Amino acid sequence: MKFDLIIIGAGPAGLTAAIFARRFKLNTLVISKDIGGTVNMADIIENYPAIKSITGRELAKLFYEHAKKYDVKIIEEFVLDIKNTGNEFEVITENNRFYSKAIIIATGERHRKLNLPKEESLKGISYCAVCDAPLFKDKVVAVVGGGNTAVAYAKILSQHAKKIYLIHRRREFRADPIEIESIKNDEKIEFVVPYIIKELKGEEKISGVILEEVDEKLMPTGKTIELKIDGLFIAIGLEPNSELAAKIGVKLSESGHIIVDDDMKTNVKGVFAAGDVTDKGSKMRLIITAAAQGAIAAFGAFKYIKSGVW
Amino acid sequence: MKFDLIIIGAGPAGLTAAIFARRFKLNTLVISKDIGGTVNMADIIENYPAIKSITGRELAKLFYEHAKKYDVKIIEEFVLDIKNTGNEFEVITENNRFYSKAIIIATGERHRKLNLPKEESLKGISYCAVCDAPLFKDKVVAVVGGGNTAVAYAKILSQHAKKIYLIHRRREFRADPIEIESIKNDEKIEFVVPYIIKELKGEEKISGVILEEVDEKLMPTGKTIELKIDGLFIAIGLEPNSELAAKIGVKLSESGHIIVDDDMKTNVKGVFAAGDVTDKGSKMRLIITAAAQGAIAAFGAFKYIKSGVW
Repeated sequence: MKFDLIIIGAGPAGLTAAIFARRFKLNTLVISKDIGGTVNMADIIENYPAIKSITGRELAKLFYEHAKKYDVKIIEEFVLDIKNTGNEFEVITENNRFYSKAIIIATGERHRKLNLPKEESLKGISYCAVCDAPLFKDKVVAVVGGGNTAVAYAKILSQHAKKIYLIHRRREFRADPIEIESIKNDEKIEFVVPYIIKELKGEEKISGVILEEVDEKLMPTGKTIELKIDGLFIAIGLEPNSELAAKIGVKLSESGHIIVDDDMKTNVKGVFAAGDVTDKGSKMRLIITAAAQGAIAAFGAFKYIKSGVW
Repeated sequence: MKFDLIIIGAGPAGLTAAIFARRFKLNTLVISKDIGGTVNMADIIENYPAIKSITGRELAKLFYEHAKKYDVKIIEEFVLDIKNTGNEFEVITENNRFYSKAIIIATGERHRKLNLPKEESLKGISYCAVCDAPLFKDKVVAVVGGGNTAVAYAKILSQHAKKIYLIHRRREFRADPIEIESIKNDEKIEFVVPYIIKELKGEEKISGVILEEVDEKLMPTGKTIELKIDGLFIAIGLEPNSELAAKIGVKLSESGHIIVDDDMKTNVKGVFAAGDVTDKGSKMRLIITAAAQGAIAAFGAFKYIKSGVW
């Protein structure tokens, strides 16, 4: 099946690219196994301008419905491989092969792991508070991380769990001041800083964590403590889903993000990128900036497809 | 009155900057005589992602209400002058003087004029179809321009007027294909291309226009025609409201737009810009990109105000 444009990813960047591509009358396909992307994992979103307050799931649905209004074709499959013949792109999914003149990569980021033994096997470890917080009613949980996500997780968990330890390796949080302030007076939330997680305890289920105090250079001071917990929420950052892009020669930054110019062009002719998978997008990690980048990428793809000029 | 941040302009860029500045807990003032900016002039907006379809006025109101939720102080006055003492900015309005550590200029663009005799004095000439189309019920009108705005004006006028001439100096329109297509089968709308307006006819009220045919290099072919009209809507582009910025040494592009870097910084310490008044913004002229730039500028202002590092 041949298209003008294939968009890989269906978060705010991918779906906005689809909306604009269709407004430009491009024959467009969106491929994604995760419609809405990480927006679905957000509890309440209050920073998408003009929408005062909305759940992540609802906002993801609004983006999806907006794209569907323009009859965007959306295939829910994993992309296994991309090939660049020079004249066109071949995108290989589990069950299909699709061809296009241009591609927009909007594959976002995934949660970074602690890389500790038993992290994959122990039950009670989660990367999504919206998804799993209700499972920890009246339990003791820990959140590890220092950004807005970690604070948001603590806040969500406070509605369910009886006690939340917020573990961070620095005394200062990266989270926005307004977010930090919003949990300061929450008696259920205890700040445990500056500590890193050294060990995960438990057999089948997580039962505790061993923490090690660190100094400003993140070197262990020698002091360790153990917390008994029923659940652990990991919010220590994200890493880009840029492996497929790299396979067709797209240049990545040191952190693995796709390097794009002001028009969201990559170094490979015909390949655009938008949203958190890009270096520009990951600086902000906002829905509003990801969506804007999707629009810019679609405009770039439209001009490229019509003119052939890169 | 002293503030951390003064935002000049209250369109999508300015109001989004205000939302984010308040989320960063900056003491923020917005100054604008035109809340919502040019969004108010749009009839139906269908390209702000996640909001399928909304009137310009309603969308402007949603941005405004979102900002008000964060207790943003908004002063409805004209800014007459800005002074940069090196340590702080002084913003002078009709009735007040305000001081701040940083400024975001989000003053947008204004409609370009034909620069023909009687353009200012004749009645029946408008730059805003949403505002004035209902005044031309069952009348004959002309729209001049070739972009999305001109097409949108023709579409709006088609609901009121009995005949609409769409005058453009080229055979090809800059408007998005989807927009052009949407008026192609409208029998009220007649394309008059490639013509430029040579003369405005009429005493107090406009009664007609004299058009001159032009070739591909926009040189007159010698052929002229006259159209009898009751109203003329001018949609020939926009120019930036960047005069105040220029006065404090902010560098402008050839087209007069404020030159900004990826963080929406200008060349003057403490001065950010966002939206259509910037070179980056005017490339897209979208609500979604203007809003994203407002968010990025607010983030930049927050980092600058907290660290003092430019």
